[in-house]
Amino acid sequence: MAFLRFFLLFSLLSLAFSYETLNSHHLPRPLILEYQENIENQFKEFDEELKLQCTSWRFAVEANNLSPWKTIPQECADYVKDYIKGRAYTIDIQRVSKEAGVYAKSVELSGDGKDVWVFDVDETLLSNLPYYAEHGYGLEVFDPVEFDKWVEKAMAPAIEPSLKLYEEVLGSGFKVFLLTGRSERQREITVGNLNNAGFQNWDKLILRAAEDHGKLATIYKSEKRNEMVKEGYRILGNSGDQWSDLLGSSTANRSFKLPNPMYYIP
Amino acid sequence: MAFLRFFLLFSLLSLAFSYETLNSHHLPRPLILEYQENIENQFKEFDEELKLQCTSWRFAVEANNLSPWKTIPQECADYVKDYIKGRAYTIDIQRVSKEAGVYAKSVELSGDGKDVWVFDVDETLLSNLPYYAEHGYGLEVFDPVEFDKWVEKAMAPAIEPSLKLYEEVLGSGFKVFLLTGRSERQREITVGNLNNAGFQNWDKLILRAAEDHGKLATIYKSEKRNEMVKEGYRILGNSGDQWSDLLGSSTANRSFKLPNPMYYIP
Repeated sequence: MAFLRFFLLFSLLSLAFSYETLNSHHLPRPLILEYQENIENQFKEFDEELKLQCTSWRFAVEANNLSPWKTIPQECADYVKDYIKGRAYTIDIQRVSKEAGVYAKSVELSGDGKDVWVFDVDETLLSNLPYYAEHGYGLEVFDPVEFDKWVEKAMAPAIEPSLKLYEEVLGSGFKVFLLTGRSERQREITVGNLNNAGFQNWDKLILRAAEDHGKLATIYKSEKRNEMVKEGYRILGNSGDQWSDLLGSSTANRSFKLPNPMYYIP
Repeated sequence: MAFLRFFLLFSLLSLAFSYETLNSHHLPRPLILEYQENIENQFKEFDEELKLQCTSWRFAVEANNLSPWKTIPQECADYVKDYIKGRAYTIDIQRVSKEAGVYAKSVELSGDGKDVWVFDVDETLLSNLPYYAEHGYGLEVFDPVEFDKWVEKAMAPAIEPSLKLYEEVLGSGFKVFLLTGRSERQREITVGNLNNAGFQNWDKLILRAAEDHGKLATIYKSEKRNEMVKEGYRILGNSGDQWSDLLGSSTANRSFKLPNPMYYIP
């Protein structure tokens, strides 16, 4: 990362100097080369510009404006790492859980046991940050074999504000359905991990069956929500870190998008 | 705004000092009051914290995580103003238009004249920033009478990256439908304003008819898109600054959310 940073700064400076070289035959030449006055300022300006660009990229991710992307932009590697490890990510997940909690409390439930809140699992209830910390926070192309090894460890910690919301939602009388892109083969390990992280008493845990493999997440999750609606359930809330958790058919009355600038699932 | 900033800083400092007073009876008292060492740092930290919180609020807006809101948070007034007037807003609208343009070029059109791109008008094609600059960039509660006076002037400038996208989309052979929450009574003035700002040759301009007044924007816009689909059109792209431009029924294959932290239309 440090090397990359240096390389980018160096490129920018090369550009600035080469521009001067290109124009140096112009007359009259300025007697004072103002830009050399304060190289520190140039570094600062470059850092500011990079931050602006990467923040803009993150907004585009969260507003679902980007086409499927495989890795984070290389120049934003430090930015994403700082975002995730710093307070910003924590503040963002706290806010989304708080907003969802306010909504959950405002809903009048029918009392017939058909009011549902759907939760995704990875990066929604469970955090895979220990894995992504070892894989560049989204800078490396996703490796399903390596990731499955991590899943098998069942060591993913809870996303604490989501656990709080989860308990509030259960306490309010919602049925809680977990809808995950994980495979049916990973049911036992997933149940174990969820329990260890503090999640209990859900009503359904839906994983990809054999016939669901190869389906886009948007399709698979829409189909599963369609089934819920056919069975008479009302999907009042839905929490997920991917737009493919939230969009499609049989969408919830209110959807809550948790931040995730590390990876994209179509 | 400057007053508000001062007031907030003052409150924070009062809090810090009152905390010390509350604890001053504790023994042993520290001999060195470390936090007084550098008041400038406290100001800086407070500014950083406010920026983090307001950025998080803006993300929640753009990811559609908030309930209907009437004004921006008072403590984020300077933040929103700086965002809009600085480079960040420009970078964001450039990015969303660029992404939309890439998608538009990637789509193979059928050639039967039924492929449609839908554009919203206010804060999507036309910018009302001259109006909002006079009204606190979203800090004041929306005043429809005052806003209509501004609309009647027909002086809203083009959002330049949107004009570029508009021309690309038309050039690619899309039918272009403009779908706005403005009233049918404002048709003439809207056509004039759009033309003056450089927008020409759209295929339909749909405004709220008498029966549409009082409908939520999400409902009104969904109904209009349903009609398009019934007429055999395929809505391949949709650009809007509000989620109510993009969600509901008959949604587009790809939707593009322009940034707008100033107001919310349900």
